[in-house]
Amino acid sequence: MAVRVADGGAVKVGLLGCGTVGQAVVRSINEGGSTIERASGHRLVVGPILVRDPAKPRPGVDPSLITTDPKRVLDDPSVAIVIEVMGGLDPTLGYLRRALDRGASVVTANKQLLARHGPELLLAAEQSGAEIRFEASACAAIPVIKVLRESLLAAEITAVTGIVNGTTNFILTEMSRSGLSYADALARAQELGYAEPDPTEDVNGADAAAKMAIMASIAFHSRVRIDDVPHEGIDRLHAEDIEHARSLGFVVKLLGVARLVNGAVTARVYPALVPAGHRLAAIGGPDNAVLLESRNTGEIMLVGPGAGGAETASAVVADILSILGTHKGSFLHNALADAGRGIAPPGEVTSSFYLRMFVADRPGVLARIASVFGDEGLSIRSVVQSGSGDEARLVLIIHAGREERMDAAVERLGALEVVRGAPVMLRVLGDGEGGG
Amino acid sequence: MAVRVADGGAVKVGLLGCGTVGQAVVRSINEGGSTIERASGHRLVVGPILVRDPAKPRPGVDPSLITTDPKRVLDDPSVAIVIEVMGGLDPTLGYLRRALDRGASVVTANKQLLARHGPELLLAAEQSGAEIRFEASACAAIPVIKVLRESLLAAEITAVTGIVNGTTNFILTEMSRSGLSYADALARAQELGYAEPDPTEDVNGADAAAKMAIMASIAFHSRVRIDDVPHEGIDRLHAEDIEHARSLGFVVKLLGVARLVNGAVTARVYPALVPAGHRLAAIGGPDNAVLLESRNTGEIMLVGPGAGGAETASAVVADILSILGTHKGSFLHNALADAGRGIAPPGEVTSSFYLRMFVADRPGVLARIASVFGDEGLSIRSVVQSGSGDEARLVLIIHAGREERMDAAVERLGALEVVRGAPVMLRVLGDGEGGG
Repeated sequence: MAVRVADGGAVKVGLLGCGTVGQAVVRSINEGGSTIERASGHRLVVGPILVRDPAKPRPGVDPSLITTDPKRVLDDPSVAIVIEVMGGLDPTLGYLRRALDRGASVVTANKQLLARHGPELLLAAEQSGAEIRFEASACAAIPVIKVLRESLLAAEITAVTGIVNGTTNFILTEMSRSGLSYADALARAQELGYAEPDPTEDVNGADAAAKMAIMASIAFHSRVRIDDVPHEGIDRLHAEDIEHARSLGFVVKLLGVARLVNGAVTARVYPALVPAGHRLAAIGGPDNAVLLESRNTGEIMLVGPGAGGAETASAVVADILSILGTHKGSFLHNALADAGRGIAPPGEVTSSFYLRMFVADRPGVLARIASVFGDEGLSIRSVVQSGSGDEARLVLIIHAGREERMDAAVERLGALEVVRGAPVMLRVLGDGEGGG
Repeated sequence: MAVRVADGGAVKVGLLGCGTVGQAVVRSINEGGSTIERASGHRLVVGPILVRDPAKPRPGVDPSLITTDPKRVLDDPSVAIVIEVMGGLDPTLGYLRRALDRGASVVTANKQLLARHGPELLLAAEQSGAEIRFEASACAAIPVIKVLRESLLAAEITAVTGIVNGTTNFILTEMSRSGLSYADALARAQELGYAEPDPTEDVNGADAAAKMAIMASIAFHSRVRIDDVPHEGIDRLHAEDIEHARSLGFVVKLLGVARLVNGAVTARVYPALVPAGHRLAAIGGPDNAVLLESRNTGEIMLVGPGAGGAETASAVVADILSILGTHKGSFLHNALADAGRGIAPPGEVTSSFYLRMFVADRPGVLARIASVFGDEGLSIRSVVQSGSGDEARLVLIIHAGREERMDAAVERLGALEVVRGAPVMLRVLGDGEGGG
């Protein structure tokens, strides 16, 4: 652990920037404090927060922490970890170098900065014994950097293929499913908040290229900068080609493709035809997905939301925990020794259900069956009958209800004279699952 | 780092068991040694290997390391890490306690042992200052334990839903796609090596229940044992119900479902109807997938092969690296400082291609176009023409070839008098990608 711990064991965290992500980070630290402390053995304290406009409202942020003076975050030796969520290259690069040079650890979400100056920041950290983490710079809460950097470090990755920009994936999904033009799909993405008012960096592939440069660097133990990643966007894509692709059995996706070619790295971003049965073809809407291939592990895919304030903040908090270290924490021990949460009684769990049974097809049978569900407080979503006479078959879907009520219903149904044999019951994943 | 390092900085690793997984671990350590050393700063050395039958052939394993005496692995103070891939509960539990008690760290792939005795093993490790890791016990190379234990530790997970048994997922996929009976699908799985000769633990849900107990314990910071996980398998599932489910828009999967109900944990395994559009419905064949939900991160899904010797060994090696520690390694530094691998020249990369262009529909046009591809050494996979006269449209898919040849072909095509405007070129993900 490379952070300074002040009296009382508290670790002070400074922020550069306090927009959507910054505010979510402050909230996560405040709300998740006890979990973080149990996991790492350290109490996190939010320290000075650098902003441009101190007058802006920032709900949940202590105004006394707000400052416009970078020195308060960068040069205060009591600030052990600097979180950079201000974006931009200048003065951000200088700020982070200054923090690292004095031995403060850095967590950054700044993909454009890393894709240009990652190596020098990593070297600066190395030299001062500080740590630098950047999970949030790739795909927000999807832990692809950690998986590449730790779990698959020795796996000899051969390819990283990803849908790493949610804005363009949303637009392409809309164009494919609804036949919208690029302009209309973009307008819809903007309406729903999936695209910025100025979407240039997203739609021209520059955002994806920065992420691929970072991921390729880690995956291939190499130095890939954004300038090494040729990128095409989706802004010149025709709806017509999406339609032709579909008729040939393909879905069009904006892909980041990084792989080894004769021992050298190639990383590129382009719209590509993906076979409809391919696992990346199923990734729709604003989701991101990264497919990691190696000889030893086969294909491992990570999927999730690749953007968002809370999601990005979650990656920042994970990086803080990674710097503090959790291995030696007695968190798991505590959880196990005091048994943590209890086990819920099975009957209290709720599910939706599928039920199939053979019944005698006589007047009034369905009414008798329906009344059993009614008595148990369960409601029928659909009934399909097939066959007739004594061979009639009923297939029912039952809305979410408590397991114990369903068990009682099944038992009562099995005892009815009009029901042949025991009903077959399966659960249905989806709506209404959860507590009773 | 809780391991003893002998003279010369080498870390000696002992094995309990040397079947498929054990041999793959030995191979990975031998082949990946230099990567592991650069990442962790430690040279790994394979030490004594406990087996039952020393006469069995074990390709690639130094016979002088083989022993039938557990003391050589368990009690030798020079063995810093003990890897358990022998399986079973007894004498395995006693062996691991003995290793942990003397301060050796343990990596285990034994899900049944952990799902029964995990807490006492974790406490034993805690007491002696040793480490215990068990990524391979959940979904082989899919790093779900690391992600839960580190990346999402503070994320307040609300649900873990998984397809965590590859055998049953293969059988269900076959039953759904080909309408096979359970018995026929099982036979096919056995033929292809996806099911053991005795498939009981897989098909009755016990294997999935053990994995869910381990994942639920970590996800909910709790103590969930296999006895707390009611499980139903797929062995009594009727092809008829899979068919009814399909007609209603569902796919049947064997799910592990763990979630919080009024603050308590419920974890269960059962065959369930999954809506066809749900992301778990798309997970076919022997693959595993785990969906992790939290308020802050949304839904994060990890997908990959959940079994296999090399895959399991990969998780074991990741766990070894996690014990040795990679944060302080100068691996990244080295890779960045010496620039690691070079960047491949773009023209040498190969892809398949989609091409759309408008042509004059005259005799001989297709021949002229085809000859351009032939001249560039590219071969046409399909051509579709639509329209006619001067408005004819050609859509071609070109087999994998070098980008530079395709660029040349596109330029030559654009210059042909019979081609109207510039052709539209997109890449196709799939066959033949890679080096040129």
